[in-house]
Amino acid sequence: MALRRVSIIGSGNWGSTIAKIVGNNIKKLPDYVTEVRMWVHEEIVDNCKLTEIINTKHENIKYLPGITLPDNVVAIPDVCAVARDTDVLVIVMPHQFLSHTLSQMKSAVKKGAYAVSLMKGLALSDDHGIRLLTDCIREILEIPCAVLMGANLAVEVSQENYCEATIGAVDAHIGSELKTLFQTDYFRIVVIKDEVGTELCGALKNIVAVAAGVIEGLGYGDNTKAAIIRLGFMEMKTFIYEFFGCRNPQEGTFLESCGVADLITTCYGGRNKQMGIALATTNEPLATLEKERLKGQSAQGPLTAAEVYAMLEPKGLLEKYPLFAAVHRICTRKLDPKGFLHCLANHPEHR
Amino acid sequence: MALRRVSIIGSGNWGSTIAKIVGNNIKKLPDYVTEVRMWVHEEIVDNCKLTEIINTKHENIKYLPGITLPDNVVAIPDVCAVARDTDVLVIVMPHQFLSHTLSQMKSAVKKGAYAVSLMKGLALSDDHGIRLLTDCIREILEIPCAVLMGANLAVEVSQENYCEATIGAVDAHIGSELKTLFQTDYFRIVVIKDEVGTELCGALKNIVAVAAGVIEGLGYGDNTKAAIIRLGFMEMKTFIYEFFGCRNPQEGTFLESCGVADLITTCYGGRNKQMGIALATTNEPLATLEKERLKGQSAQGPLTAAEVYAMLEPKGLLEKYPLFAAVHRICTRKLDPKGFLHCLANHPEHR
Repeated sequence: MALRRVSIIGSGNWGSTIAKIVGNNIKKLPDYVTEVRMWVHEEIVDNCKLTEIINTKHENIKYLPGITLPDNVVAIPDVCAVARDTDVLVIVMPHQFLSHTLSQMKSAVKKGAYAVSLMKGLALSDDHGIRLLTDCIREILEIPCAVLMGANLAVEVSQENYCEATIGAVDAHIGSELKTLFQTDYFRIVVIKDEVGTELCGALKNIVAVAAGVIEGLGYGDNTKAAIIRLGFMEMKTFIYEFFGCRNPQEGTFLESCGVADLITTCYGGRNKQMGIALATTNEPLATLEKERLKGQSAQGPLTAAEVYAMLEPKGLLEKYPLFAAVHRICTRKLDPKGFLHCLANHPEHR
Repeated sequence: MALRRVSIIGSGNWGSTIAKIVGNNIKKLPDYVTEVRMWVHEEIVDNCKLTEIINTKHENIKYLPGITLPDNVVAIPDVCAVARDTDVLVIVMPHQFLSHTLSQMKSAVKKGAYAVSLMKGLALSDDHGIRLLTDCIREILEIPCAVLMGANLAVEVSQENYCEATIGAVDAHIGSELKTLFQTDYFRIVVIKDEVGTELCGALKNIVAVAAGVIEGLGYGDNTKAAIIRLGFMEMKTFIYEFFGCRNPQEGTFLESCGVADLITTCYGGRNKQMGIALATTNEPLATLEKERLKGQSAQGPLTAAEVYAMLEPKGLLEKYPLFAAVHRICTRKLDPKGFLHCLANHPEHR
């Protein structure tokens, strides 16, 4: 039987962390090619090519400094060369470049391959709807796509701190193979069938984190923050059932790592919460705050809130999602953060 | 039609806070007697009886200083005098005195009355099992008993910070009346039918909070803490279905304020988490830590963990609840906190 091959499309801090895990695991798995290719968008760091640094130093000095990668992880700048002959494509890249990269690699994708997405975000469809990143993968590459989500800060995982993740895979064989590839003593995996719920929790929770930050910035205590987190959680659930109900999301998904645990982590740390605090404690526009406080990186929550708002507004559904709507209006400075709780006065949950 | 009467059994900080809410609400409800009696276990404060201070100053200066109580809240030291003619008994007292107090008041309880418990804890039954506090109420008073639980720190609620609570009431009429009595602009109520799930979440979450504290004390980050909180949450769920499954607990309860929100609040603040941190960062016995850091008050989590452990051990079920078991062994200093994560290595969730 031919050995199976696993490759990583992406090499940011999360991609490099996953490369470390898969690289180490695969050395002990006799049914797999030991080499794990990792696609690196080539750039020059300290006058050297990043791929060459990774392949000689076995460290991604730009995106995951201080962590040694296994020597069977090989950085390659050509995405087609990475995808070729691969059975399991682990896709973990900045999602604004996703469609372009998928189109580039499409011709190289092996028949019978499948993908697993580790990306947290949403794409916009042409009809004011939102689109799953995995649906872009499924449609462009014409292969199945599972997801791995959870309360996973790349740096903590790379340091081998104990944590959990959720794999959503409709196909049980895919779920089982992915668990073998990803699980370690410190990175504990639960496999569920609900791909769509797993993915959407990962994207929508960032809106809730902005809300939690606004509440913290306004000086409210733990009770109020817990109420806001829960109301956001309920809007996530309502949204998933309303727009993706036909794809069979499951109530139990919300209690997995991709649900409650990721929500908690994101609402108590991370840049979305930080932006929420900044929005509540200054009068600066979001772009300025991102520039000053995130070194120009953008936070995912305000973007996702804008996408969701653009989808809900033309359908007349904003009243059903008062927290999501208020977050977008706060991010665009159309609502004074002090008016946030007032927007929740008639929340559907309390009727 | 006779006016209905609501009385409060208990006057600690949570009892006094609820008296404030009910007292204010009832002034606007024409079908109710305006007076709200509150049972106060009499004591002398600053050379005066506490009941007299409350009835003249309209402030519980010992347990809820700085908060004005409505003038229709009347403190009474005789529990029978409070219970008499009452239709809705709001029970919110230290639960070690519950059985005794219920026996005292039993003869005064009106036919057709019902109770609502605001107490978070468990009682022990004679057969090494745990017993719901509401079951004590139901059995001794022979009346129905609903519950009100949620992410509610008394001080924050008394200051009118926005928060949520869950009412669990099998009887829809009772649920609806309680919502009318308790809901305010800032105290938002969701009524569900699952009495038993609502009550047990409130009790069991304290064990998880000790675990969260231990992890924080050991220096782990947000990922690990979120994993521990989630695993504890899953043990709560398994426990509730295993031992109270015949009483119809509901999956949705875990997403209510009494579930996820109360869990979050308790795992990020409060004395149970504090004890967890202290257990992980010192070698002192729990009793010493409570004396030094909680001014002699006891934390609920270690007690509940001991009760749950005593129930699971003779049934051979400890392996199914590795987090609950480890918390008890850490609290009794039979397990070094550093060995905590090792106890979760084969958690049933990850099989």
